[in-house]
Amino acid sequence: MEPRFATRFKGMKSSIIREILKLTAQPGVISFAGGLPAPELFPLTQLKQAHMTLFDKGDSAFLQYSTTEGDPSLRSWIAQKMNRQGSKVTDSNILILSGSQQGLDLMGKIMLDPGDYVVVENPSYLGAIQCFGAYEAQFLAVESDAQGMDLDHLEELLKQYHPKLIYVIPTFMNPTGITMIRERRQRLAEIAARYQVLVIEDNPYGDLRYSGEDIPPLKAFDEAGWVVYLGSFSKTAVPGMRLGWVAADPQVIAALAQAKQGADLHTATFAQAALSEYLHQHNPEAHVERIKKAYKERRDLMLACMEKHFPKELKWNRPDGGMFIWVTCPEKVDTVELLKKAVEQKVAYVPGISFFPFEDHNNCLRLNFSNASNTQIEEGICRLGQVFHAACK
Amino acid sequence: MEPRFATRFKGMKSSIIREILKLTAQPGVISFAGGLPAPELFPLTQLKQAHMTLFDKGDSAFLQYSTTEGDPSLRSWIAQKMNRQGSKVTDSNILILSGSQQGLDLMGKIMLDPGDYVVVENPSYLGAIQCFGAYEAQFLAVESDAQGMDLDHLEELLKQYHPKLIYVIPTFMNPTGITMIRERRQRLAEIAARYQVLVIEDNPYGDLRYSGEDIPPLKAFDEAGWVVYLGSFSKTAVPGMRLGWVAADPQVIAALAQAKQGADLHTATFAQAALSEYLHQHNPEAHVERIKKAYKERRDLMLACMEKHFPKELKWNRPDGGMFIWVTCPEKVDTVELLKKAVEQKVAYVPGISFFPFEDHNNCLRLNFSNASNTQIEEGICRLGQVFHAACK
Repeated sequence: MEPRFATRFKGMKSSIIREILKLTAQPGVISFAGGLPAPELFPLTQLKQAHMTLFDKGDSAFLQYSTTEGDPSLRSWIAQKMNRQGSKVTDSNILILSGSQQGLDLMGKIMLDPGDYVVVENPSYLGAIQCFGAYEAQFLAVESDAQGMDLDHLEELLKQYHPKLIYVIPTFMNPTGITMIRERRQRLAEIAARYQVLVIEDNPYGDLRYSGEDIPPLKAFDEAGWVVYLGSFSKTAVPGMRLGWVAADPQVIAALAQAKQGADLHTATFAQAALSEYLHQHNPEAHVERIKKAYKERRDLMLACMEKHFPKELKWNRPDGGMFIWVTCPEKVDTVELLKKAVEQKVAYVPGISFFPFEDHNNCLRLNFSNASNTQIEEGICRLGQVFHAACK
Repeated sequence: MEPRFATRFKGMKSSIIREILKLTAQPGVISFAGGLPAPELFPLTQLKQAHMTLFDKGDSAFLQYSTTEGDPSLRSWIAQKMNRQGSKVTDSNILILSGSQQGLDLMGKIMLDPGDYVVVENPSYLGAIQCFGAYEAQFLAVESDAQGMDLDHLEELLKQYHPKLIYVIPTFMNPTGITMIRERRQRLAEIAARYQVLVIEDNPYGDLRYSGEDIPPLKAFDEAGWVVYLGSFSKTAVPGMRLGWVAADPQVIAALAQAKQGADLHTATFAQAALSEYLHQHNPEAHVERIKKAYKERRDLMLACMEKHFPKELKWNRPDGGMFIWVTCPEKVDTVELLKKAVEQKVAYVPGISFFPFEDHNNCLRLNFSNASNTQIEEGICRLGQVFHAACK
């Protein structure tokens, strides 16, 4: 059989991460590849209590169909949290998602015609590149430095191409770990309003800061409603419940809700109610502090081990938060090829190439530090050091 | 602000059902509008135990990210169930969905270019019409009778238009309650293979038979792999966990998994594990028998009340299963207009118009019998009878 697939499907690439995650499931492999939180830190006791409370209430509404917009108590908790961080939103700005990845897909669905331009950082989150690619978007790669997106370059792109969307991860960016400075956030929000282009602010890592000072999200500088904010509970609570949200202008929320209704009717009523119970009745802030403490130690340990074991030809950043360290090798090193040798040594990373919209950089790689124990970090970075030393010879 | 939405978004219609569900949330309204299962029959105790068991296992994997294909033990249970009903599938034919509605969306995504033709029954499930409409499909309405789709007419449409998809609900169809006879299933599977066109078999109600003899699903007649089967746990377990599945040829499953990865990464790990625990350790078959007994009584009561209270000008079917009765009024009756009068009398139904792909029939309506108590059925049908008598005068 040979189904006649849609044109857009021919643009969908199978995720290299996904294939690698299969590869690294072999016993004994120390994987710095995935973007997984540490499961031993999940708030199991509190989540168990939250679920029990629902079952013991004697009302079955939490297992019934519900509205597309989502659980009112969960939306309200989110709005309050965002307002504490400087945004001005109400419940009517919030739509609950089945994980924040769904926000990318729904934004593509309501916004992108084939051939439309989307601005992304270079590199950017590969799940976003794949997602917009499936809507047959054309990418524009904006330049960046250690302070975030180059906004002069962005303005040039906006003038020349009139893109439909700008996609940005301003805080502890995946994969590079870079955080956009406050001044640029202010100016980016103004640019969005002036050029009337929607900016998707993807912020799964914002709460995980280990050093430096908090900066309000881009959404906090958004006076005119052009910023579409994606939030996630996968890193601050658990990923396995698939819960996230989008905060945006009511007109955008209405369009997204309509698209979501066709996509999955609504996010699981039960998961929403249980998470809301957890957030309201337990102490989610204390839990985030506990995670931050552990991840900070892992970041510091990994950086120290890299300093000790990696050849001097390699460069990397020191992220103030998030889950990733971004490594740049000499240009002659092909990190896809090198991964095979790394896996032979029972250690894994993600090659950088998939994060570049035009797949034009072979010599970068991403390391995750949140999902490994101290012993794994020490041993894994030591093994990687040997692989890199051999490659740089 | 005025975002530049995609062309496809202009084709998305807000669901009339959704607006009505809001309307009927007023206190005192007896609603036969939604397609909701009876929450008082949910297997609360068993689901509570299943969730507890997971929390008490001392392993956090059920709250972590997981593979897009889904929980192996859940896929295996589904494959075995489908094989007992006559299909020939293995785990590799199964992809877990965040509710079976997601299967419609993903099929649209991998198959439909703007302008592609999709064959639907007339009327058909409005969620499917909306979903394919959002991919800018053109609809072909195939004729049906009390034995299901008219396959001679279908062949004419296939020859003339070469549609990409055929969408059918062969068993206890939503909204009409009609079940396609065995001979037509056999022939439809052959037609799909001969014309090389994928058939989506949507089967959320198949397990809910109250009278007549079981007929194997269309998928059981599928030798060549052209049938894409959508299954749901929303009616046999609970809707609020949003769990369904698709069973198809591995080539189609691979494409759907790729599309799903971009749409929501994977279905909630926790919900899948908990449902699998429930299915394996408790007695889901006994639970379905319990539901069937209750729904059969409600169907019979509603039919008896309709016989007693509805004017003789109205016609309706006697469904052998599922959740709906389909009523046809005299042509002069506009059931959208009449709904306002019904709601004044504190009773609600769904007007039939949204179920017709070309919205060209005003005089039909759908009644749900699964979500109402005996008292509500008696009182609600009596009220509706008065509204219809006045309209038929």
